[in-house]
Amino acid sequence: MSRYDAVVVGSGPAGLEAALNLKIRNKRFLLFGSHSTSYKVETAPHIRNYLGIPDVTGKELQSRFLDHLQRMDIAVSAEQVNTIYPMGTHFAIATNQNAYEAAAVILCPGAFQGKPLPGEERLLGRGVGYCATCDAPLYKGKTVAILGWGDEAVHEANFVAELAKTVYYLPVKPSAAPLREDIRLLKGQAVEITGEQKAAALVLDSGPLEVDGVFLLRESIAPGTLVPGIALKDGFIQVDSDMRTNLEGCFAAGDCTGKPHQYMRAAGQGQTAALSAVSWLNTGNQQF
Amino acid sequence: MSRYDAVVVGSGPAGLEAALNLKIRNKRFLLFGSHSTSYKVETAPHIRNYLGIPDVTGKELQSRFLDHLQRMDIAVSAEQVNTIYPMGTHFAIATNQNAYEAAAVILCPGAFQGKPLPGEERLLGRGVGYCATCDAPLYKGKTVAILGWGDEAVHEANFVAELAKTVYYLPVKPSAAPLREDIRLLKGQAVEITGEQKAAALVLDSGPLEVDGVFLLRESIAPGTLVPGIALKDGFIQVDSDMRTNLEGCFAAGDCTGKPHQYMRAAGQGQTAALSAVSWLNTGNQQF
Repeated sequence: MSRYDAVVVGSGPAGLEAALNLKIRNKRFLLFGSHSTSYKVETAPHIRNYLGIPDVTGKELQSRFLDHLQRMDIAVSAEQVNTIYPMGTHFAIATNQNAYEAAAVILCPGAFQGKPLPGEERLLGRGVGYCATCDAPLYKGKTVAILGWGDEAVHEANFVAELAKTVYYLPVKPSAAPLREDIRLLKGQAVEITGEQKAAALVLDSGPLEVDGVFLLRESIAPGTLVPGIALKDGFIQVDSDMRTNLEGCFAAGDCTGKPHQYMRAAGQGQTAALSAVSWLNTGNQQF
Repeated sequence: MSRYDAVVVGSGPAGLEAALNLKIRNKRFLLFGSHSTSYKVETAPHIRNYLGIPDVTGKELQSRFLDHLQRMDIAVSAEQVNTIYPMGTHFAIATNQNAYEAAAVILCPGAFQGKPLPGEERLLGRGVGYCATCDAPLYKGKTVAILGWGDEAVHEANFVAELAKTVYYLPVKPSAAPLREDIRLLKGQAVEITGEQKAAALVLDSGPLEVDGVFLLRESIAPGTLVPGIALKDGFIQVDSDMRTNLEGCFAAGDCTGKPHQYMRAAGQGQTAALSAVSWLNTGNQQF
């Protein structure tokens, strides 16, 4: 089991700025996210209010973020964080590939889109998943339904279609990315995921669809699913002005804490969260 | 009387980022501060945690901020803001040169150093001032005492010495900048400013010094002096997560709201404050 001072979940502006500050303060940490940092930043057409970097495209801003990470020798791990369990003395982090332990956690997963689907939380890990590319090999020759939010979901669906027998795709949020022709496009609304021990059907408003697995490819995981016991307010993670959550040692920053959803606000909160985590780690109060 | 949607007080990262967002949202506003933005930024030796701009000197970061302002066609007014009066329906802003009215105020004056000196608030505007260069002509041929915090105060003192008969200088915070030889350097601690209708003496721990005027050249004005009635907490301006203060229409951001005193945190709060001000202006609830 690998132990760390802190883990940062999310590689948008909040998570990246948190990581810079942890690095400068010589903490041992992992940064989980995407190698391309933030899909939202990457696809932003034009940003004018990021002080010091006037008039940039999202692509340009992304490349500056990546350059900053590289110069500070900070790597992003693309492992998918499924759950973070508060253990009282530390946090246990379960990814799709490994388990980790950390004294502090900084949550920067972005804004969560939508409520969990009925059945989703109950069947999570039993035919229901959030990372199609990770779990695709399990569905070789099988039937999979994918609920997709945006372009990245389409890319994942196309990959799954190389292995699965049948892939259904329901575009919850539209995307301009082209879907493989052998993927069956669904219409309407998802209502529920059913099944006893494991997912057996995706129920649409037009009726049930028998499947072996369902992927919900949102841009982020619901905070309450990610960290059991975390306090929410209006669907966002509740934080104080130091970015502390209700769980000792657990901090949050960025779009997950509320609106406005803006890069500078997110980065500023990421910095505050990291420095609060550093103070907390340095008090030695944590028992890890 | 010139009327504005908003005034921003302070040109550090918080104030600048607030201004960018007000500009993008097409608000009519004034930005008060220094033409060189922030003295604190300018003199920072090395900044590594400003996401997207790795490894910069304060000077370089300052020039990027100035470039951003210029591209957005935002001017900084160097008028010294002395007091902001909440009028119920709007705010009345008194500078050393003019009076303005604004529906909303965004306070980004930086962290306040130190408590007001006894007599300071009572005699403000009557022989006690915060902008020596502004008021220097009033003291031609007279005797002035200056309490200075850092380099900028030394520059101001040197300018006053060109006009005044006698200038005393008490370095409250040390400075590397050279003081004119005809300025009389004081030692010890300032205890009080005395005088009936106007300032008559600066009292030091070694005894009183007769003067015609006293300047306190701090890096910022005490928030309670700047905005009568504003709620403080531990000496900082109390804000909620939207950067609202206790006064409707008055927002605050940056070092004045608490620690950690960091650029990214300040800029992020400036963005949030500006967008909260925009929402508030757009509701039309204000009666201005």
